[in-house]
Amino acid sequence: MAEEAEVRAQAETVRRLKQDKADPDEIAKEVAKLLEMKAQLGADEGKHKFVLKTPKGTRDFGPKEMAIRERAFKAIISCFKRHGAEVIDTPVFELKETLTGKYGEDSKLIYDLKDQGGELLSLRYDLTVPFARYLAMNKITNIKRYHIAKVYRRDNPAMTRGRYREFYQCDFDIAGQFDPMIPDAECLKIVHEILSDLQLGDFVIKVNDRRILDGMFAVCGVPDSKFRTICSSVDKLDKVPWEEVRNEMVGEKGLSPEAADRIGEYVQLHGGLDLIEQLLQDPKLSQNKLAKEGLGDMKLLFEYLTLFGITGKISFDLSLARGLDYYTGVIFEAVLLQQDNEHVEEPVSVGSVAGGGRYDGLVGMFDPKGRKVPCVGVSIGIERIFSILEQRLEASEEKIRTTETQVLVASAQKKLLEERLKLISELWDAGIKAEILYKKNPKLLNQLQYCEETGIPLVAIVGEQELKDGVVKLRIVATREEVSIRRENLVEEIRIRTSQC
Amino acid sequence: MAEEAEVRAQAETVRRLKQDKADPDEIAKEVAKLLEMKAQLGADEGKHKFVLKTPKGTRDFGPKEMAIRERAFKAIISCFKRHGAEVIDTPVFELKETLTGKYGEDSKLIYDLKDQGGELLSLRYDLTVPFARYLAMNKITNIKRYHIAKVYRRDNPAMTRGRYREFYQCDFDIAGQFDPMIPDAECLKIVHEILSDLQLGDFVIKVNDRRILDGMFAVCGVPDSKFRTICSSVDKLDKVPWEEVRNEMVGEKGLSPEAADRIGEYVQLHGGLDLIEQLLQDPKLSQNKLAKEGLGDMKLLFEYLTLFGITGKISFDLSLARGLDYYTGVIFEAVLLQQDNEHVEEPVSVGSVAGGGRYDGLVGMFDPKGRKVPCVGVSIGIERIFSILEQRLEASEEKIRTTETQVLVASAQKKLLEERLKLISELWDAGIKAEILYKKNPKLLNQLQYCEETGIPLVAIVGEQELKDGVVKLRIVATREEVSIRRENLVEEIRIRTSQC
Repeated sequence: MAEEAEVRAQAETVRRLKQDKADPDEIAKEVAKLLEMKAQLGADEGKHKFVLKTPKGTRDFGPKEMAIRERAFKAIISCFKRHGAEVIDTPVFELKETLTGKYGEDSKLIYDLKDQGGELLSLRYDLTVPFARYLAMNKITNIKRYHIAKVYRRDNPAMTRGRYREFYQCDFDIAGQFDPMIPDAECLKIVHEILSDLQLGDFVIKVNDRRILDGMFAVCGVPDSKFRTICSSVDKLDKVPWEEVRNEMVGEKGLSPEAADRIGEYVQLHGGLDLIEQLLQDPKLSQNKLAKEGLGDMKLLFEYLTLFGITGKISFDLSLARGLDYYTGVIFEAVLLQQDNEHVEEPVSVGSVAGGGRYDGLVGMFDPKGRKVPCVGVSIGIERIFSILEQRLEASEEKIRTTETQVLVASAQKKLLEERLKLISELWDAGIKAEILYKKNPKLLNQLQYCEETGIPLVAIVGEQELKDGVVKLRIVATREEVSIRRENLVEEIRIRTSQC
Repeated sequence: MAEEAEVRAQAETVRRLKQDKADPDEIAKEVAKLLEMKAQLGADEGKHKFVLKTPKGTRDFGPKEMAIRERAFKAIISCFKRHGAEVIDTPVFELKETLTGKYGEDSKLIYDLKDQGGELLSLRYDLTVPFARYLAMNKITNIKRYHIAKVYRRDNPAMTRGRYREFYQCDFDIAGQFDPMIPDAECLKIVHEILSDLQLGDFVIKVNDRRILDGMFAVCGVPDSKFRTICSSVDKLDKVPWEEVRNEMVGEKGLSPEAADRIGEYVQLHGGLDLIEQLLQDPKLSQNKLAKEGLGDMKLLFEYLTLFGITGKISFDLSLARGLDYYTGVIFEAVLLQQDNEHVEEPVSVGSVAGGGRYDGLVGMFDPKGRKVPCVGVSIGIERIFSILEQRLEASEEKIRTTETQVLVASAQKKLLEERLKLISELWDAGIKAEILYKKNPKLLNQLQYCEETGIPLVAIVGEQELKDGVVKLRIVATREEVSIRRENLVEEIRIRTSQC
């Protein structure tokens, strides 16, 4: 770093000369020296030994991974569009204060940008807070939109399980003042459609309501001020056993053992309409205003889900809490179930692939007058889905194409580069997907091999004789059949032979 | 901020108690106190008055802007696929050192992330350096790929002219050792196809070669060490007049006035094959090895471009320099021309919309053994293209749809929510794009108005009588025609009436 210090000293010299309004020639000389030193330093830096890696918790997507990713995106986007959603996009970073106070204990995972002068910025942590900011900023009170983009969390990633520091979220949200539970039910229908469509195996969508949780905390004797922190303890129940969660509540968070035990009884419950009816009769819960509201809406939700025919995969689960602070009503989370034939026990959950809920207060936090816009939405956890699809593809030995090229323009003899370029230019201009090898005189065998490797189905071969006759030899790679096609019919012939409508 | 200090003090208390292995009950009590204080602080923060804006130099894309953006992307992606490109993706940030020493004087515009422990990271400045890092890291010596993603520059943005701090790049690159100028010519063909396809008006693609520039600098008497900095002065010629550039060269960069004047003569030249031939005969340039190589390749390039039939829009321009350090051969830049009928002078350029070139040394900077992978590529400057398309759409009063919804499921009478939900569920499951209003008893007029506003072409109306008869009334919004369709034929009928194949 000695050299860098020298450059800095030289920069200081220049600065002082300019400040002192020194002789322009002298300044010019010193500036030139500075630039030379900088160029020298830059060249040296290029020789450093680089650590060749992507940042911790991130990865590249090569052509094969991208082909898989685009398949999954296609299924998800077509579902969102089927439900009439518009699409928006927001910047990858937000003002730091936009994200402040929205994520509770998870705020420490936010990536901040370096203060380089100007505004303090952070990378977005999810797509929900930017959405709420967008609604408030543009005074939008009514929208159904999807947003597919990367979000950033300084988590300790378990990359083998599909958890990263940079990952995509696929969000669908409905904002607006509507009759209860209709948009909420649609969000669950969407999760059901996407997970079914992607054929990821059996799944269950757990549903709960923040109001039921809060009511439960109240009747169990949790002080108001501890609702959120106890809620975040309950949220861990999908990963750690009750005993550990209880220890955290009592030991770390200072909850009374009695209150913890009462919570313990509730959070074991899960079921369907029966359980809702049972809890509506629960002597304690039914006396709590919040819980009663939540249970009433949960009943309505199940009625709508019955009309959608999807209650078979829905479980009302009192242990579902969801970590984020901003939820105010229904919350839900979809988990894939591991098929394990050796055990007859309940199927084991292998992880959350979608989640969401209602957040009626978030937009109001951004509106200068606190005007609320009720919202409900779902986020598809696409990274874990990729991991599963990738593993499956690897196991299946299916060969996945990474391009859509219809035809390779080839030649059998030498000195035909110009003719190949002329033909491929015609094909491109007619909208045909075409490639050539970037060689003046490629061997025919190499050209055919390239098609085999990349899955190109057709080869258009130009030769001296064909040029004279005004034809092109079209070879079908799979069958090795060759047909002579008049040049003016070639585009149409390629279209017919590669159409998959 | 007094409160925040209190929280920090409390956290310190807890830390000390844990360190001293104090009584667990006491620790629990203090932890609980800390959590309450934090929750309190979080709640207060929520009440701050937020500045409701996106960060400087960035913007949201609403549904209308997204519809325009997706049109442009579609044209670009379909061109890249037509040329047989695969697709990759890389993280939005890279290790800071990956970007160091690649961008010359522009390095100061790189966004750094805050050091929060762990690796030092920067937001990507372009897609080319990450691509080179990807090739070296995966030892790929041969690939044709496109990559469409956002890049970040702490520039002083002129947002009205379509320049932002966060903006998309659409990159197409060909990596590999091939016969000269074939991939280079394809890159220019791609720019020509995309700009023609998007109908942005007249354009010209300026072409030059770094070797010609370096040869020119040498024969004009520029010292080796000043090539890069003088090159970046020449790069400003599209924005400022020669006199200013000359002053910078002589005054700031210490070049001799004679050398500057010699450069001045060359950089005025632009033309086609004629100019190439003329320079190949130039007594000084023809003696310079680099310039001769560059001119020879430029001639070959023009021969290929003639076969592609696009030389009409190509200008060999000695003033084109391109700012980035990493180019080693052909460079090019496409500019839109302003049609101005009142003046018969040369058309004025309104800004660059695509650029690129050959960079044979960049991958070697990442390879531990310095192994080179020759590359050439093009980047489409999509933001300026968006601006033009947006302005045009605004002027045209064309109404752009932001959803693809085919049918609204409606009811004319009250108490039919359940029936609407059942029907829409059937339609979704059959792949029909359908919406309902989220109201228990919406008025028919409101439902029809919603279709008018959003461009939904069909309404499926359920009513008591229709339910009894096993039919649905299908209304065509444009004509107000209504037809009775048997329920089992509804899906097919909607498909036929909304197919646009």
